[in-house]
Amino acid sequence: MYRFPTILLSRHRLYSTTSQPLELPLSHPIYTIWGSNTGVGKTLVSAGIAASSLLSPPSSVKFHYVKPLQTGFPSDSDSRFVFNKLLQLRNRNNNNARISLSASNRVLNFSPATTARENEIQHLVGEEGFISSELICKTLYAWEEAVSPHLAAEREGFVVKDSALLETLQKCFSEVSESGVDKVRSEVFCVVETAGGVASPGPSGSLQCDLYRPFRIPAILVGDGRLGGISGTISAYESLTLRGYDVVAIIFEDHGLLNEGPLFSYVRNKVPVLVLPPVPKDPSNDLMEWFEGSHYVFNNLKEIMLSAYFERIKKLHEMPSKARDIIWWPFTQHKLVPDGGVMVIDSRCGENFAVFKKTEVITPLFDACASWWTQGPDAKMQAELARDMGYTAARFGHVMFPENIHEPALNCAELLLQGVGKGWGSRVFFSDNGSTAIEIALKMAFRKFSVDHGLILDCHEDATNERSAELMVLALHRSYHGDTLGAMEAQAPSSYTGFLQQPWYTGRGLFLSPPSVSMYNNKWSISIPEEFQWENKELENITFASRAEIFHRCRDNSELAPVYSSYISKVLSGFRGSSKIAALIMEPVIQGSGGMHMVDPLFQRILVNECRNRKIPVIFDEVFTGFWRLGVETAVDLIHCEPDIACYGKLMTGGMIPLAATIATDAVFDSFIGDSKLKALLHGHSYSAHAMGCMAAVKSIQWFKDPFSNPNITSEGRLLRELWDDKMVHKISSHSAVERVVVLGTLFALELKAEGDNAGYASLYARPLLQKLREDGVYMRPLGNVIYLLCGPCTSPEICNQLLVKLYERLEEFDGCSN
Amino acid sequence: MYRFPTILLSRHRLYSTTSQPLELPLSHPIYTIWGSNTGVGKTLVSAGIAASSLLSPPSSVKFHYVKPLQTGFPSDSDSRFVFNKLLQLRNRNNNNARISLSASNRVLNFSPATTARENEIQHLVGEEGFISSELICKTLYAWEEAVSPHLAAEREGFVVKDSALLETLQKCFSEVSESGVDKVRSEVFCVVETAGGVASPGPSGSLQCDLYRPFRIPAILVGDGRLGGISGTISAYESLTLRGYDVVAIIFEDHGLLNEGPLFSYVRNKVPVLVLPPVPKDPSNDLMEWFEGSHYVFNNLKEIMLSAYFERIKKLHEMPSKARDIIWWPFTQHKLVPDGGVMVIDSRCGENFAVFKKTEVITPLFDACASWWTQGPDAKMQAELARDMGYTAARFGHVMFPENIHEPALNCAELLLQGVGKGWGSRVFFSDNGSTAIEIALKMAFRKFSVDHGLILDCHEDATNERSAELMVLALHRSYHGDTLGAMEAQAPSSYTGFLQQPWYTGRGLFLSPPSVSMYNNKWSISIPEEFQWENKELENITFASRAEIFHRCRDNSELAPVYSSYISKVLSGFRGSSKIAALIMEPVIQGSGGMHMVDPLFQRILVNECRNRKIPVIFDEVFTGFWRLGVETAVDLIHCEPDIACYGKLMTGGMIPLAATIATDAVFDSFIGDSKLKALLHGHSYSAHAMGCMAAVKSIQWFKDPFSNPNITSEGRLLRELWDDKMVHKISSHSAVERVVVLGTLFALELKAEGDNAGYASLYARPLLQKLREDGVYMRPLGNVIYLLCGPCTSPEICNQLLVKLYERLEEFDGCSN
Repeated sequence: MYRFPTILLSRHRLYSTTSQPLELPLSHPIYTIWGSNTGVGKTLVSAGIAASSLLSPPSSVKFHYVKPLQTGFPSDSDSRFVFNKLLQLRNRNNNNARISLSASNRVLNFSPATTARENEIQHLVGEEGFISSELICKTLYAWEEAVSPHLAAEREGFVVKDSALLETLQKCFSEVSESGVDKVRSEVFCVVETAGGVASPGPSGSLQCDLYRPFRIPAILVGDGRLGGISGTISAYESLTLRGYDVVAIIFEDHGLLNEGPLFSYVRNKVPVLVLPPVPKDPSNDLMEWFEGSHYVFNNLKEIMLSAYFERIKKLHEMPSKARDIIWWPFTQHKLVPDGGVMVIDSRCGENFAVFKKTEVITPLFDACASWWTQGPDAKMQAELARDMGYTAARFGHVMFPENIHEPALNCAELLLQGVGKGWGSRVFFSDNGSTAIEIALKMAFRKFSVDHGLILDCHEDATNERSAELMVLALHRSYHGDTLGAMEAQAPSSYTGFLQQPWYTGRGLFLSPPSVSMYNNKWSISIPEEFQWENKELENITFASRAEIFHRCRDNSELAPVYSSYISKVLSGFRGSSKIAALIMEPVIQGSGGMHMVDPLFQRILVNECRNRKIPVIFDEVFTGFWRLGVETAVDLIHCEPDIACYGKLMTGGMIPLAATIATDAVFDSFIGDSKLKALLHGHSYSAHAMGCMAAVKSIQWFKDPFSNPNITSEGRLLRELWDDKMVHKISSHSAVERVVVLGTLFALELKAEGDNAGYASLYARPLLQKLREDGVYMRPLGNVIYLLCGPCTSPEICNQLLVKLYERLEEFDGCSN
Repeated sequence: MYRFPTILLSRHRLYSTTSQPLELPLSHPIYTIWGSNTGVGKTLVSAGIAASSLLSPPSSVKFHYVKPLQTGFPSDSDSRFVFNKLLQLRNRNNNNARISLSASNRVLNFSPATTARENEIQHLVGEEGFISSELICKTLYAWEEAVSPHLAAEREGFVVKDSALLETLQKCFSEVSESGVDKVRSEVFCVVETAGGVASPGPSGSLQCDLYRPFRIPAILVGDGRLGGISGTISAYESLTLRGYDVVAIIFEDHGLLNEGPLFSYVRNKVPVLVLPPVPKDPSNDLMEWFEGSHYVFNNLKEIMLSAYFERIKKLHEMPSKARDIIWWPFTQHKLVPDGGVMVIDSRCGENFAVFKKTEVITPLFDACASWWTQGPDAKMQAELARDMGYTAARFGHVMFPENIHEPALNCAELLLQGVGKGWGSRVFFSDNGSTAIEIALKMAFRKFSVDHGLILDCHEDATNERSAELMVLALHRSYHGDTLGAMEAQAPSSYTGFLQQPWYTGRGLFLSPPSVSMYNNKWSISIPEEFQWENKELENITFASRAEIFHRCRDNSELAPVYSSYISKVLSGFRGSSKIAALIMEPVIQGSGGMHMVDPLFQRILVNECRNRKIPVIFDEVFTGFWRLGVETAVDLIHCEPDIACYGKLMTGGMIPLAATIATDAVFDSFIGDSKLKALLHGHSYSAHAMGCMAAVKSIQWFKDPFSNPNITSEGRLLRELWDDKMVHKISSHSAVERVVVLGTLFALELKAEGDNAGYASLYARPLLQKLREDGVYMRPLGNVIYLLCGPCTSPEICNQLLVKLYERLEEFDGCSN
């Protein structure tokens, strides 16, 4: 068998934290010039655009040319080429007499191996005349050897980290923006010319198309007019779009092969394709005539770039009001959305949104609500998932599932049973979201219960069986299992269930108030509801030395255990009559939507055991808790007891697309086996086990648990390392504005002290605090007066700490104004 | 503005019907050799693999080398090169003395411009010895000019259609398979060498990576070791995977630039990367030494190819039993899945599955159930959607929706309101599937009704409002609105709703039996339920001269209209007490799951009007009927009346991924506006308005209605042309086994005459008929004794007709055996 050279498999992390957010100003057009191969004329195109901008009266233009990576320096220097050509062109044509051009060329960072140290040259041609334009050429990093930057960097001992490169580029953009303060949009222009082809490595080894991705700068692709160039151009275009770039135009040099035909037809009405005249091959040719002959093409290109830029700006400005007019947002009182409160998300890169600000900048915001708890990928994982999505859509789209099998579905089911379902689960039923997964789980549990308890004596094909009993669930107060009616019926009455919201809701359950655990003032302690009717007053102030202690199995022998079990027994035996408790359903450990409450795991374990003793099927709702959300792949590992049925969704696909799964034991499955189709589980959604969802799940499940791809996985592979800094957690838990803290796995939650209308789901109390945090680059959403930070399983503790620091600082202010 | 050269925008259809299905035999390994550019050494690699296979004792091997497209012929001929090199290599090495090699080289089709006519040469080297191997080289099509095939084809007047090329290739594969009848798997080997780069056009202009896609042959990618070659290799790899190909290995010539480093790290543990020694550049070099020096690399490559082949075969054979063990299929009685009844779907290409048959062939099956009615794309649309999925995943993944906006969601909402919601819809609420869209619609309708009828007098923030009334829906018998409890409550009792299935179901509706329309014996007629209590006996035999007549508005003045309206009035006014009819919900025109019944559109129109007069909100369930399913974009255009709320799903994303939308009027939306969040619609799923779903919907909505991309759109743009051949439809409707036919838009349905257990949802009556049709390449699923064909909005009438012919033929047999 072929073996992979392990030496080359370095754990590589894209975009480790930069000291400031990577912002792209939109005040003026900024473009990247990509090549479909090396040597296709990117620099000629850059110079052509510069000429078209600078030498077209009557505008007075500042043109920024940026070459981030230059190898073969100083004999090669693309920025010097652009500089020289523009000066030559300025002097050549009489029409340019009215233009004075000041031009500069700088190199910001040299490899120590380079001999040259000419770090700045400047020129002014023409008199200070009517139109005074400026060309600013910059090379950010230069190496001597004429090889790929990653090789040159290694050989010359001058490796540049991705984050450093991005920060340098960011500074250039700020300068672009500043240089245009008093100028109209089109009078400042910036092009960034990449090195080699679109997927050529940068100095750290990251492919450039990945490296520059956080800015997502609109792209001009210089295609290849040679034999084979159609293919190379299309593939390069696909590599760019497969990373979420918008390609605004394709331009290439004519080699007489009519490559434009197939290219036109490929990009159809999406991207214009322009053809440049053949470039003279004689090295002594100064190209002046060629540039003049190409002038109309470059003018055309410049117009396309400008018009795409203006269109983008226009769209970004219009989107909020358009959205307000036609979108109906979930869980949103439209009347309460403040003016200017609609946020345009231009893209996402790993854990960050890229958001359009009215100050005309695209800026990152850490997605600390994990987009309703779905998100997990870092930038690298998102890029890989995107490629898998393209592949799976092309290979499968969606295909019919019942009685069929396809690779992604089978692989996904296997991984689920080897992972979250390990030790108990035998069957996987796919659906679309957590809510449907719960409805399916309830149907499964009720059948199992009915079979076990003789409620279905006669399994004939009678579809309209009499209702032999009223089946109820046993569930916990503050639990939430989804928005569809069946899922809602399994939750206690709440803001979501009133007549106003769902006139059909009746609440078919017995709802218990569970004891909960939280940290306050640096101490974990239990809060036990009154219903438990204390005989022993000492139980009231139980605290824990560490969080680990809370989850320890030895608590089975603690004095609380008999208190819990006798309470549960009493409740269950007190429940009589025609109704029957036919299922236990609960979110293990953390109740999410109910306000990020940590239920005492001991209580949940005893509850499960009591139900099992009574042959009541147990459902775990792991839609929120599954897949490392709580620091372990499944909360089963925290509460040390297993369900008969469990539901998964959200993070299962790494936050890409909707997919849910209900896992069950064979015993549950068997209660649906019979001779008639009517005994089968007659439930299924159109996109059951859709290939893309399954593929995303396969990739995510593997990615999160592989120490190679997820640096947070500890060596044993069963735990995430601690992501939240202990000191900061303690500090926040001791803050005067804070009622309680819950911290576990990827979750850090806190409840703000609040009273009256300020408390509860509809409270707007936390809003000003979160508004401030958005200014700090952190996007949170409140659950009333409970707020939380949710990172991904791969997020670095360094980033988590930054979040905590920002939160603490704003808490300080918040505390100030609320007192 | 830049204008697109319209002359180049030809309407191009991939894979127009071939005379036989395109099957890929798996009895022996078949691979495609792709190049990341032209001139990277594909032919050297092909020859190397051939040498490694043929000249490695002790196997006696048949090696097929296929060059589908050769330009520059006869001076260039890759198959001749392989032929010559192998003969040379056989003679060179003493170790080969024990091998006799018979070799042939044929050219099957010449462009008329080529001068050479050497269409076959043969050689035998060595004596008929112990090991007798055979090399069969073939060029399928040859052109004289040394340019891209599409140019050569055009210039030499020898254009080859994609379908013809694929059929020729298919014949080669059959020969490969036949040549190996008495040989073990690894003793026959076939490589297909493409021309130029992966996305170089074939003779028709289709890109080769698209052209060969129906076979989805595993790929070997010959990379580029030159400067810039990392980028070109990665981009080519991405173009292949973005079309659903599996790349099994990457191999490239060493140019001393260490390109393997970044390539290793890019493909990580997925694909092996192999490096070949530098190729001598002297044209007089016979490369014998190079081949010998490369022998170990080619051996390695051959082993990788063999082991990937064996692994694929093994997987394909094992998948059915593995699936049986762990999958829980929706709507499936596992006990009734016959042995060998689990189908492995290896991929999909447009309307066809590619299915693995136990005879070891991958064969297409027309997806006539449209994978639970979700499918619409042809092969070209699927390819474009796949690229969009990759782009959107990379750009957005999923991002938080409430109070935010992103481009795909806004564009999708706009297109929905300009399309299916045109003239009435104002707001779009996104969810995940038809069932959730319905639950949302019900919540909307109930609120609107409650506000309009004063049931919510006091809109205070009281979450636990008293239930002021029992709200019910008005719905039709045989309707089906989804599997979640809320959606189920809105349907009449059925096989899906019994205690066995859903103990919580109560059926909160008033359910009417609607009059229905169908074709029998070549005649459309109405069937009216008894409840209507005829005064006028003549109404019993109403027939229509044409289908169009059924939908004509002039029927408002027919004698049936007052009959319908007085019946509805009577029912509605007879409904009194504490319960209130608070919503009408119905599938317009066609009731899908209920058995493909066409409800009389006149009845539905009158029902809508009667409800509107009583301020009862009207919900259309267009999950099945929307997006051209019935030949119009929305069934509103068929029944000529508008809803207050409508639900969409399935085909909305072109069958790619789950997404649903509930569209409502402003009046409905306004009933949720207030000062408290508690008055908002507190419903939302994790992946609300996920970017990929919205993007797929944007592309699909546009694609289906654009006459450029959808040739079935008539010039007025509001109707699909008739897809089902009139004569065949009449013939089938007159068949003795047929009870009724319904044909409309993309749907052709028929009910088989059946009695007793043979009728109804759980009936297995149609099974043998559909089994036979699978042998004919048509995949259908029954609804009991109702069967149907569902094509896509872009499917050609030619294909539809083939389906009808096959169905008719099997009906003839079926009729025979059932009598």
